[in-house]
Amino acid sequence: MNYDVKGNKVTGLNIAYIGGGSRGWAWGFMKDLANDPQICGTVRLYDIDISAARRNETIGNKISAHPNAISRWKYTVADSLQQALTGADFTVISILPASFKEMRSDVHTPERLGIYQPVGDTVGPGGFMRAVRTIPMYREIAQAIRDYAPDTWVINYTNPMTLCVRTLYEVFPGIKAFGCCHEVFGTQKLLCAMLKENTGIEAERHELYTTVTGINHFTWLTSASYKGIDLMPMYADFASKNWQEGYDEGGDLNWMNSSFRCAQRVKFDLFLRYGAIAAAGDRHLAEFVPRWYTMTPETVKKWKFGLTTVDWREQDLANRLKRSDDLISGAEEIDLAPSGEEGHLLLKALLGLGDLVSNVNIPNYGQCPDLPLGAVVETNALFGMDRIQPVYAGNMPKGVLPLVARHVQNQENALRAILDGDRKLALATFMNDPQMGNVGLEDGKKLFDDMLEAQKAYVPKGLLG
Amino acid sequence: MNYDVKGNKVTGLNIAYIGGGSRGWAWGFMKDLANDPQICGTVRLYDIDISAARRNETIGNKISAHPNAISRWKYTVADSLQQALTGADFTVISILPASFKEMRSDVHTPERLGIYQPVGDTVGPGGFMRAVRTIPMYREIAQAIRDYAPDTWVINYTNPMTLCVRTLYEVFPGIKAFGCCHEVFGTQKLLCAMLKENTGIEAERHELYTTVTGINHFTWLTSASYKGIDLMPMYADFASKNWQEGYDEGGDLNWMNSSFRCAQRVKFDLFLRYGAIAAAGDRHLAEFVPRWYTMTPETVKKWKFGLTTVDWREQDLANRLKRSDDLISGAEEIDLAPSGEEGHLLLKALLGLGDLVSNVNIPNYGQCPDLPLGAVVETNALFGMDRIQPVYAGNMPKGVLPLVARHVQNQENALRAILDGDRKLALATFMNDPQMGNVGLEDGKKLFDDMLEAQKAYVPKGLLG
Amino acid sequence: MNYDVKGNKVTGLNIAYIGGGSRGWAWGFMKDLANDPQICGTVRLYDIDISAARRNETIGNKISAHPNAISRWKYTVADSLQQALTGADFTVISILPASFKEMRSDVHTPERLGIYQPVGDTVGPGGFMRAVRTIPMYREIAQAIRDYAPDTWVINYTNPMTLCVRTLYEVFPGIKAFGCCHEVFGTQKLLCAMLKENTGIEAERHELYTTVTGINHFTWLTSASYKGIDLMPMYADFASKNWQEGYDEGGDLNWMNSSFRCAQRVKFDLFLRYGAIAAAGDRHLAEFVPRWYTMTPETVKKWKFGLTTVDWREQDLANRLKRSDDLISGAEEIDLAPSGEEGHLLLKALLGLGDLVSNVNIPNYGQCPDLPLGAVVETNALFGMDRIQPVYAGNMPKGVLPLVARHVQNQENALRAILDGDRKLALATFMNDPQMGNVGLEDGKKLFDDMLEAQKAYVPKGLLG
Amino acid sequence: MNYDVKGNKVTGLNIAYIGGGSRGWAWGFMKDLANDPQICGTVRLYDIDISAARRNETIGNKISAHPNAISRWKYTVADSLQQALTGADFTVISILPASFKEMRSDVHTPERLGIYQPVGDTVGPGGFMRAVRTIPMYREIAQAIRDYAPDTWVINYTNPMTLCVRTLYEVFPGIKAFGCCHEVFGTQKLLCAMLKENTGIEAERHELYTTVTGINHFTWLTSASYKGIDLMPMYADFASKNWQEGYDEGGDLNWMNSSFRCAQRVKFDLFLRYGAIAAAGDRHLAEFVPRWYTMTPETVKKWKFGLTTVDWREQDLANRLKRSDDLISGAEEIDLAPSGEEGHLLLKALLGLGDLVSNVNIPNYGQCPDLPLGAVVETNALFGMDRIQPVYAGNMPKGVLPLVARHVQNQENALRAILDGDRKLALATFMNDPQMGNVGLEDGKKLFDDMLEAQKAYVPKGLLG
Repeated sequence: MNYDVKGNKVTGLNIAYIGGGSRGWAWGFMKDLANDPQICGTVRLYDIDISAARRNETIGNKISAHPNAISRWKYTVADSLQQALTGADFTVISILPASFKEMRSDVHTPERLGIYQPVGDTVGPGGFMRAVRTIPMYREIAQAIRDYAPDTWVINYTNPMTLCVRTLYEVFPGIKAFGCCHEVFGTQKLLCAMLKENTGIEAERHELYTTVTGINHFTWLTSASYKGIDLMPMYADFASKNWQEGYDEGGDLNWMNSSFRCAQRVKFDLFLRYGAIAAAGDRHLAEFVPRWYTMTPETVKKWKFGLTTVDWREQDLANRLKRSDDLISGAEEIDLAPSGEEGHLLLKALLGLGDLVSNVNIPNYGQCPDLPLGAVVETNALFGMDRIQPVYAGNMPKGVLPLVARHVQNQENALRAILDGDRKLALATFMNDPQMGNVGLEDGKKLFDDMLEAQKAYVPKGLLG
Repeated sequence: MNYDVKGNKVTGLNIAYIGGGSRGWAWGFMKDLANDPQICGTVRLYDIDISAARRNETIGNKISAHPNAISRWKYTVADSLQQALTGADFTVISILPASFKEMRSDVHTPERLGIYQPVGDTVGPGGFMRAVRTIPMYREIAQAIRDYAPDTWVINYTNPMTLCVRTLYEVFPGIKAFGCCHEVFGTQKLLCAMLKENTGIEAERHELYTTVTGINHFTWLTSASYKGIDLMPMYADFASKNWQEGYDEGGDLNWMNSSFRCAQRVKFDLFLRYGAIAAAGDRHLAEFVPRWYTMTPETVKKWKFGLTTVDWREQDLANRLKRSDDLISGAEEIDLAPSGEEGHLLLKALLGLGDLVSNVNIPNYGQCPDLPLGAVVETNALFGMDRIQPVYAGNMPKGVLPLVARHVQNQENALRAILDGDRKLALATFMNDPQMGNVGLEDGKKLFDDMLEAQKAYVPKGLLG
Repeated sequence: MNYDVKGNKVTGLNIAYIGGGSRGWAWGFMKDLANDPQICGTVRLYDIDISAARRNETIGNKISAHPNAISRWKYTVADSLQQALTGADFTVISILPASFKEMRSDVHTPERLGIYQPVGDTVGPGGFMRAVRTIPMYREIAQAIRDYAPDTWVINYTNPMTLCVRTLYEVFPGIKAFGCCHEVFGTQKLLCAMLKENTGIEAERHELYTTVTGINHFTWLTSASYKGIDLMPMYADFASKNWQEGYDEGGDLNWMNSSFRCAQRVKFDLFLRYGAIAAAGDRHLAEFVPRWYTMTPETVKKWKFGLTTVDWREQDLANRLKRSDDLISGAEEIDLAPSGEEGHLLLKALLGLGDLVSNVNIPNYGQCPDLPLGAVVETNALFGMDRIQPVYAGNMPKGVLPLVARHVQNQENALRAILDGDRKLALATFMNDPQMGNVGLEDGKKLFDDMLEAQKAYVPKGLLG
Repeated sequence: MNYDVKGNKVTGLNIAYIGGGSRGWAWGFMKDLANDPQICGTVRLYDIDISAARRNETIGNKISAHPNAISRWKYTVADSLQQALTGADFTVISILPASFKEMRSDVHTPERLGIYQPVGDTVGPGGFMRAVRTIPMYREIAQAIRDYAPDTWVINYTNPMTLCVRTLYEVFPGIKAFGCCHEVFGTQKLLCAMLKENTGIEAERHELYTTVTGINHFTWLTSASYKGIDLMPMYADFASKNWQEGYDEGGDLNWMNSSFRCAQRVKFDLFLRYGAIAAAGDRHLAEFVPRWYTMTPETVKKWKFGLTTVDWREQDLANRLKRSDDLISGAEEIDLAPSGEEGHLLLKALLGLGDLVSNVNIPNYGQCPDLPLGAVVETNALFGMDRIQPVYAGNMPKGVLPLVARHVQNQENALRAILDGDRKLALATFMNDPQMGNVGLEDGKKLFDDMLEAQKAYVPKGLLG
């Protein structure tokens, strides 16, 4: 590490940003850095779309130059992974594996078998296919980290989160990597809303404690409390009361107006079945179980969440490209609004500037005693100077365990099959997803092959028929 | 132990037979005992249907009196578990939990949701319901063994095998129990047939070695050999060649003529998917996976196995009752044909009269390293004097593991739910069976409740709605 | 729980204090409670020496009545465990097992074989014998907690810490118990002194983070940092520099003037051997290894720590009895000086009044991945509302592991032997202590029997010859 | 595999023999091969002393040409590991690491601290030093196997057995290696003698079953039986009766006349302490515990076993060299007496020519549930075609576990320290051996360095001071 520590401040930090051309998450991160009085340094942006990286270099430096910026970071562009990584104290990875063209196949091709995926980037046939093209990219990144920056701390934001982080550790077991996701935050905010509705108390989500266990996007809260108040019985009532109609925060936040909102009906239903709080958006949760909530588009509507179309995503990207132009040209003014993410706080904790407990995706060292060691799980961990220590999450609720364990085993098999180019294991794993239900081998194999074909350029040798 | 050992012979043995009124398996066991020159003693028959026990007492003593009998055993009737167990060196359990009336519901009620079960006694909705009524009976038996015969060796033959054995250990952890099943034998015989067809070599199944792993009725062979010949590549060809049409031994053994036969198409299909030999009849295997092989009665026919109806079972029982009459009256002559089972051989091994390796259902001490410790698994074990030592089975094939593990977790949850009367966990477990596919909660719950109702007298408090 | 939570305060708490006649630790606890603005309630003092409890009732209520007391607690005497425990939200256990008469034998009898024990209450022949009489007492306490207060949180302060906590969990697996010890604090203070000496920075021990692992009194720090400063390389220099002469804080704190002080030479020596910081007083540490530091009284002097005699302890007790008189009579004025212990802080964290990370003795759920699950270990844990979640400590340094593991196995065997009255296992375990070195069976057995004889009234049947 | 299987016979086998110049064990193996009707092929002798290999080539071919030889093997000399290994179906390793000059230091240098080692090749300071020079040799062998014969089955006979086998697996995890040792056979023969003395029954050791657990040379029998007769209670009497005087078979077998004999007093004493049968010669056993049996040469005499001097070993080697001359010249006639070893039987089992249960040294897959997975342990295993499946040994006796576990941890640390050249860990491990007792750091370090010096040419960089 080459940075300077003095009086609870760190200067001279080097951050490598892989996927540094990102329009969206990158900007939020830049603003969070600009707002932070304790850390300062350089961010090296690397992207296979180098022009996107260059545009973000401009935007980053504009953010840094904002008169209200507390900390002035320098943004540069790196031409290669080697250049980005060499000397990096931290490495952020946030990439889009291939393009929305491939994602269109992930999300929509399975519809021909009646499989409607609200997201399609984590599990289900879509998540599997996304993993097929992402894992080889992560193998390359892991090798570069091993060769050029073995001591760097790595923060991953890409989906499929679990398999991205898992690949990093499989390829370079000495890596110090973790994955961050804000889905749990949303459920914590729901608990705050519930608390306010029930007691009038206005709490921030940071003031709650929730015991987190499971895997990314299929995370469960087994305890929740606020200053001596047990929130679990309160949630039991809340779920019963709102199961029928859903809980809608109204206005812009209404699920009908947004691909990303939901009325929490799936979450409540899962609570009534299993007695623990599923802690991700309903769109994600619905993909981890049989097609209970997605049998038809009407079923989805009944459960009050949205199927995010790839049309929508393409339009959204166009909007963000436009915003990128505007930010560079000045047509849109730079602001410094915090992102609500915790990335920079975790980074500070790792520098020794204040311990922090947060949920994180790392290998299982025993924090999830019911799941295999080494599988990537999401639980709380204690972040501190150069260390992430998982916090024991206790046993998983008995009814939940088989649901989660099934995906863990599929993910472990997907990793093996994709790294090794093992077509037989890949197909067996693809078929074993809950969304595949009773789909027979013939139909399943055809879907498998068609979906591979749609992203052929990215598929490891051996997987193709 | 009260028996006498002298010169490789044991006399004065005491065997308790719970379910001693059994028509069928009991008679085979009696003949195997009569044929064995190394062991002799008394069998105490206990049955809640005491008249059935008395009839078997007569039949047993007739078998024993047969002029060709090598060993003359004495058969008596015990009035209570206590009387049967006190002083017993071995205890055989082979009961029919409740009657075919309840089994009719197990097998046929789920058909309304399109769930066709070829057996319905192990997993699936039928297997679950059978467990609901069997586990409390096994709790009672385990407590009696703990109180009256803690050192007795217990051989179980009742289904659901896994949950019966698991209950015995859960209720009395110090028990020395194991479960025997002949399904693996059938697959070994298939390998013998294949060997003969390919090489002309006629081998007995005892001469093969097969590495067995998995759980009862969903057991897998990961290696198979005969005198230096590796049978796995031979089976790969065999499966490919016969996948389309099935392998039929012809004549009386044809699958079309028997509820218990099959053409091995499911077995071959599973091999092509996973690369390991599923080692149970196709009727059983089909119940452990999604409804790939049972979507409709036509699908079943296409895969060339039979759905055993309860009508058939009732007729079969009537035939056996008739035979029982005939054996007692002398209308049917007693013969001493060996049963083909291994029970008496295992018993002899446990007495120290010759070590033996055989497949057996016992708790996992690590022999299945991928499955939870304590769960009941089926692998080979080395049987010897007062010991059963499991033989390490190695890792399960990667594609097979998630299929098996899912049932193991369901079985562990079923045990807990039924012993504790935990309705929520019971329903969640019932819904998580692969046969339930995408069945929604409303339909599922109704099926659950209707099936409980059909056997209401046997259902633990707490499970009913 | 019967207390009231309102606005980050808890009132109406019930605390049972077993060993409530304690002169010393009890008084500190009373003052800590009196100083705390967030909690209030009743403390029920229970002691087999009821007059001691009554005296503490008076002292406690005087402390509570002190004009500067922020929180006014009520102290009462309970006549029985049942009375003390019924309705208790928290239970503190701090007892002296038997008396100094028995401890005299623990500490001094082994001297005849050249075994000099600086403390004699944890491991070594003395620690074993103390366990012999303490474990049956803890069995009784655990049963009472199970019967009268199964949900109470239990804080243990008695030695041998590990075996006391372990017994509680063995006898009542559902218990919520943990053990607190301040030895680690002393080493953290040493690190603060080092930091000041090296950099001039004055830090409180709470501001450091140390990764704690091991077992009570043989605890190890594998990382230590302060606001981005890694203290491990600093300690390496510090240990090298001070190994020869020791590090003495001078004045009253000089090791020559106190049975409880040391010059840290053992600690430095262990660091040079193993590369991790042993985190207990040298007197304790020396007892866990072969007689490297205690071969003769001269060796002890050379390593600059003291052998605590029982003469000294008896004198100390007399002083404390005198102080007790004075506090009651008013000859000594009550003051409210904080104890420096963390008991009340942990209690508040468990009530939900602020999460806290601290080192604690609880069963191993995987936080020490190299040690057996279920053994009681000392690591950091996250304390929060009604939960203690161990923090993963990582692998133990390779050289340290065998030293610690040996004691863990001895402690597990001691537990079993003493609970079961298994003389053979007890003797084998006694002989396996590192302090016993090459002592032969004859000498060892005689020592064993003589030491049992010295506390015969407390020895479980079966252990005596 | 390139051999031919036909009708339960295998021809065309290739065996690589590393250490093929061995005088003694090699000759026995050659004779066992010549006597076996089921297998035939070529043995390639490789030795760094190539002339010794050439001499054995001659002797081997003479044995093979013996008129009574049933199977005629061909012996050749390989010039390199590559040549020996390429195409080898089996690989035997039996080497002398360095020479008796180095062994002289191993055995005798520690005597200056009062450490008398009866063997000095397994544990203790001597065993550690032997490991220091052997592990690098085994690293080289493992790499050669990985590169030239990854599928060969490897049989190791070299000491320190555990660390040799452990190194092979550490360096090439895919290896199929196991270690054979006849020490357990000796104890089985003792049981036969006891059986005959007590009952008149003459049994062969193969007819007994013994449950084996532990590590090489510190192996324990936890059950023993013969045809329905439990030998454990018989042994309890036998040990009590003979503990005082020892059990001596008289004549040439008397312990006083042989460095390799003993009167079993250590074995009986360990039984009285722990209730299980230590299953190695007393000379080995005494080295695994504190200096209870070896405090002085007089103590050794009292316990009635011998200290094998290196003088004796050198004389013995000279004798064997002379015999080698005589066998080549014909001065000594070739005979075909079986060796009593089981190597060729295990080899046949691995070829599929008959399953076999025997004790073997392989990594722990769970067969020793109390010891770390991956450590090399000695238990029974089922040998069959291309597989060794460990047989579950059950829990180790509680009193024995800490003794064994201590050595396992030391061995794991020794492996790491020697492979990595980690002097600090090496010294800590050396000091932690039970034989080192209370030896202080100064004396210990000097011994460590002097012993390294004595074999300097073989010591990995980094270990030297």
